[in-house]
Parts: sequence; C-alpha cells; structure tokens
Amino acid sequence: MNTKRITNLLGIQYPIIQGGMVWCSGWKLASAVSNNGGLGLIGAGSMHPDTLLHHIQSMKQATQKPWGVNIPLMYPQIDIIIDCIIKSEVPIVFTSAGSPKIWTKTLQSNGIKVVHVVSSTQFALKSEDAGVDAIVAEGFEAGGHNGKEETTTMSLIPKVIEAVKIPVIAAGGIATGKQMAAAIALGANGVQIGSRFAVCKESSAHENFKQYVYKSQEGDTMLCLKKVSPTRLLKNDFFNTIYTMEQAGASAEELKEVLGKGRAKKGIFEGNLSDGELEIGQVASMINSAESVTDIFSSIITEYNNTLKSINQEFI
Amino acid sequence: MNTKRITNLLGIQYPIIQGGMVWCSGWKLASAVSNNGGLGLIGAGSMHPDTLLHHIQSMKQATQKPWGVNIPLMYPQIDIIIDCIIKSEVPIVFTSAGSPKIWTKTLQSNGIKVVHVVSSTQFALKSEDAGVDAIVAEGFEAGGHNGKEETTTMSLIPKVIEAVKIPVIAAGGIATGKQMAAAIALGANGVQIGSRFAVCKESSAHENFKQYVYKSQEGDTMLCLKKVSPTRLLKNDFFNTIYTMEQAGASAEELKEVLGKGRAKKGIFEGNLSDGELEIGQVASMINSAESVTDIFSSIITEYNNTLKSINQEFI
Repeated sequence: MNTKRITNLLGIQYPIIQGGMVWCSGWKLASAVSNNGGLGLIGAGSMHPDTLLHHIQSMKQATQKPWGVNIPLMYPQIDIIIDCIIKSEVPIVFTSAGSPKIWTKTLQSNGIKVVHVVSSTQFALKSEDAGVDAIVAEGFEAGGHNGKEETTTMSLIPKVIEAVKIPVIAAGGIATGKQMAAAIALGANGVQIGSRFAVCKESSAHENFKQYVYKSQEGDTMLCLKKVSPTRLLKNDFFNTIYTMEQAGASAEELKEVLGKGRAKKGIFEGNLSDGELEIGQVASMINSAESVTDIFSSIITEYNNTLKSINQEFI
Repeated sequence: MNTKRITNLLGIQYPIIQGGMVWCSGWKLASAVSNNGGLGLIGAGSMHPDTLLHHIQSMKQATQKPWGVNIPLMYPQIDIIIDCIIKSEVPIVFTSAGSPKIWTKTLQSNGIKVVHVVSSTQFALKSEDAGVDAIVAEGFEAGGHNGKEETTTMSLIPKVIEAVKIPVIAAGGIATGKQMAAAIALGANGVQIGSRFAVCKESSAHENFKQYVYKSQEGDTMLCLKKVSPTRLLKNDFFNTIYTMEQAGASAEELKEVLGKGRAKKGIFEGNLSDGELEIGQVASMINSAESVTDIFSSIITEYNNTLKSINQEFI
C-alpha cells in the first residue's frame, strides 16, 4: 500500500496531514489532528518567535503523537525560528515559500524530518536534490499562496510522482474521503488538507471568517494578486478592489500598496470580512458547518473506505 | 458499479468518451474510438453543414458501434446543423456553449440521446431541468473553451455528483488510467478525454501542432482571453501577445480585434505555430509521442485496473 511510505516516515496512523495555516493552526488544532491519528502542524508563518515557542510548549503537553511546524522560508526572522525549532526538539518541519537548499541539512542533522511544499514538478525535483524527506505537491485549487503555473492537483500529482523517488503528499482540492481516494489513485502517498481544518471548531480563526466560509458557494474563491504572489481568496470587498485593479492592468507596486500589511490577520483572525484577506481553497463551498477534528477524521476515513468499495471493479 | 450508468445509457463498453474537438475529431478519430469500445464524437464546431454531413456518412461506414456529434449551441447555422443531425439519424448528441433548453426536447423526440457540457454545479442543475440524459462536468484544467469560475475537476465533480441525479461524465485533467480512476473515485460515472486524442495518430490536427504538444512541458498552457471567453492555450507568439495585452488591462473589444477569426483553424489544422490559437489541456505535458487510438485504450484500461489493485486497502 503506497500510503505506508508516508505513515511510516512520519509515524502516523492515517496519511492525513493538516496544512500549517496562518492564523488557524496553533497548538489546539494541531494537537487535535495528531491525537486523531494524522499529522498536526503548527503554522509558524503568523507567529513571532516567542509565540511559536509558546505553541511548541503547549503542543508537547497536548499530545504524545508525532507533530510538526510549518515554516515559510521567507520569514523575516528565519534564523531565530530555526534555532527555536532545533532547541525545542520539534520532530518534523514542513517548509514552504523559499529554497529548500538552505536549511534542510541543518534541520536533518538535528534529527528533524523535513518536508517541502512545491507547486510544480521542477521544484519537486529541486527539493529532492536538496535532500528533503518528502514533498507536498499543491495544486491550483488550494487556498492562500499558490503556484504561478496554475497546475491543478489532477494534472500535477501524476507528473510529480513519475519524476521523484521520495514520498509525495497531495494538496489542493482535498477535503473529503472521495477527494482523498482520488489523490491516492493519482499516485500520492498521502494528503494535506487545509480548508476543512481551517474552519473547524479547534481552528483559531475568527468566528466571522468561519461563518463566511460555511455560507460560500462554488465559484466564490478566485486566484488573484498574480503579479505580487498568486493567492486564492474568498470574494469580499478587498478582493473586489484588487480584482478591479487587476482587470485595469494595475502594476505589482500599485497592488502592493493597496495590499499593505496584516491583511490576512485582519480577515482570518480579527474577522474583518470587508477589509481582510480571506485565504481559503476552492473546496470552501463543500464545508457548511462547524465540525470537530474527530468528526472530520471519522467522516473522511468512512467516505474513503466506502469509495474504495464502490470502485473495486476492473474493466476487461 | 457506478460506471454502468454511462456505459448502459450510451451502449458502450468502456465509460470513456472522446471529447468533440474542433479541427481534430472528424470521422477517422471518432470511429476509431467507437470501434475500440468508447464513444467517438465528431466535433461539428469547425464544420460547415456539408462537411458535417460528409463526416456523418463516413462515420456510418466506419463503425457499427454507438457514436455521436458534439455541437456548440452558439454555432451560427445551428438550425441547419440540428436538421442535418435529425435527418441523418445521429444516435447521440453532446451540446456545449449555450442553453440546453432550446434543442434538448427536439433532439430527444427524434430518438437522440442528449448530453450537455457544463463547468459549474449551477449549470449542471439547469441542464438536468432541461431534461438532458447526462452531463459532462469539465474542470479548469481542460483545453480550449472553459468556465469563468475556474473550478478544477477535483473540486467540481463531487459537488456536481451531489447536486444532480442524472449520470455525470468528468472532463479536464484526464489522460491516463490513474486520472480516470481518480475521476471515478470522485463519483463520476465516466470520463471525457480530449487532449490525448487530439494529438493521436487518427486526429486530423496538423503534424506541427501534434509535435509542439509532444514537446510541451508542465506550465506551458494557460487560461487566457477571460474577458472574451476563457480559453486554455499552449504558449506561443499569439498567446504572448494576448497575455501582454491582458497584463496591461486590455478590454474585451481590444482582445477581440487581435483575436480576429479562424485562429484555431490556423493553429490546429494549418499548423501555424506562431499565429494560431493552440487549444489543449494541462495534461499536454504528459503526452510525448504519436499513439494510435487502440494503444491509448489499452494503456488507459491497463493503468486503470492496476490503480484499482494498488489502492484496494481500506483504513481502520
């Protein structure tokens, strides 16, 4: 069974990783995921080093199961974060948004497993060359920051699987057991799920944000800010401003000025639905109510198993 | 087995439909697909009524198996085309790019099965209301004309399946047995495959176009012309011109003027790689050589069956 490559590598029961998400995945969400047999990730991207340390310490109290931290490598105080992670004996690190060449060996020589997030086969190969233990290959349908080539999960995963020898975790468009079964059929060894966990009960996202996601419909997210850094957002006033500017040919500088700083915090953590940046994936429209992490695992595993039963007949 | 809903409805062996593609799918390609156990579709979008009649007559000579015609409903001489189809006793019609309300009942009352192509759950429901026999739900990764909401196959199929009672054929990002298994896992009753057939030996596309597709890499297609009608194209000089205009905020009128008429014919049929519109899906980079329809069927069915074997273990 090809999912064993991921469950064995990470020491988890189910090949389900909770994406490390800014303003959503602190120790509460991550420990609940780990305690349910998946891999919980603290999203360090929205944390000051002191805050991260607090979450790491709380995480150690909250679970005895494997867990990890997700770090965007563009993080301004990256040296301090890496130091904190090594000293705190974090077992697993997922890195994204930057080159895996710089920190992979340092982390691994301290006994830490390293998984890097990519959105193309080319970067999957570069990550393998840098020596990472596994990669996450993330498709166009994923929420938040996204690849420039717009390759979807359906197109991306089989190419990446063919290109690299290390285990591959599929991300983007995966929220249910059917979608997980589809990702495994494409050849993935595991899945990373973001949106469904971003708005679950244990997520630290603001209630306004969660409710707005539950009410969203198909077509309500869109990839924008392509000239700055492609980002999938739920439509709101802020999105409409950016979209109108982009349609009129606004430059990266003009967009950056309107974007400013702290937009994701404003939207996701403070619940400002008009001015905030509401990062979420295309699957948002499939999530309609507040669920616990335990409910989500039970639903996904049951649907996954039922899906396998329903497609077990070969053609002759 | 949920694929039986499509194979029984259309009277075919495998739940594989060859997309009706302008300048690619005449009677040669379509009859080869039908003779191999799938459903071949003549792509009427690029044909004058006389040409279509010739292809229908040749098709009847070339196969005894079920087959069909794909008609874009925006076709200028649509009345003549519908009349030709009814008089020629075409058994199955796939309609796209227009409202299924206008012609569905007329076709069905003449004993013709009608399948409509959509890119959203909303239009899937409208098609069901119009009484079509099945729908094709096509994701963002598909080649050529595409939906405005940019919903990918992974996100779209489970939503559509949940919404409608009629059978659903998945399209977009499907070229291999793994991708077919993924689509079936998502709940689809069958698959429509375009790109892989567009550049196979039996396709009437120009050799230049086929070779350009074989050499293409991941990320070489992009959805453009969104202000006119979203279209996925392989990058070339023409694409670059459009892309640069769009980045600068060009209007629909400006884009239409540069687009002009006959661009798809120029690119796909005449093999003009710099000035033509090269319509193809994201899977283009997975197709590297000239295959026969028989080879394609054999490859897809073998890979599909192997995929089912490899993912047959449930989680506990």
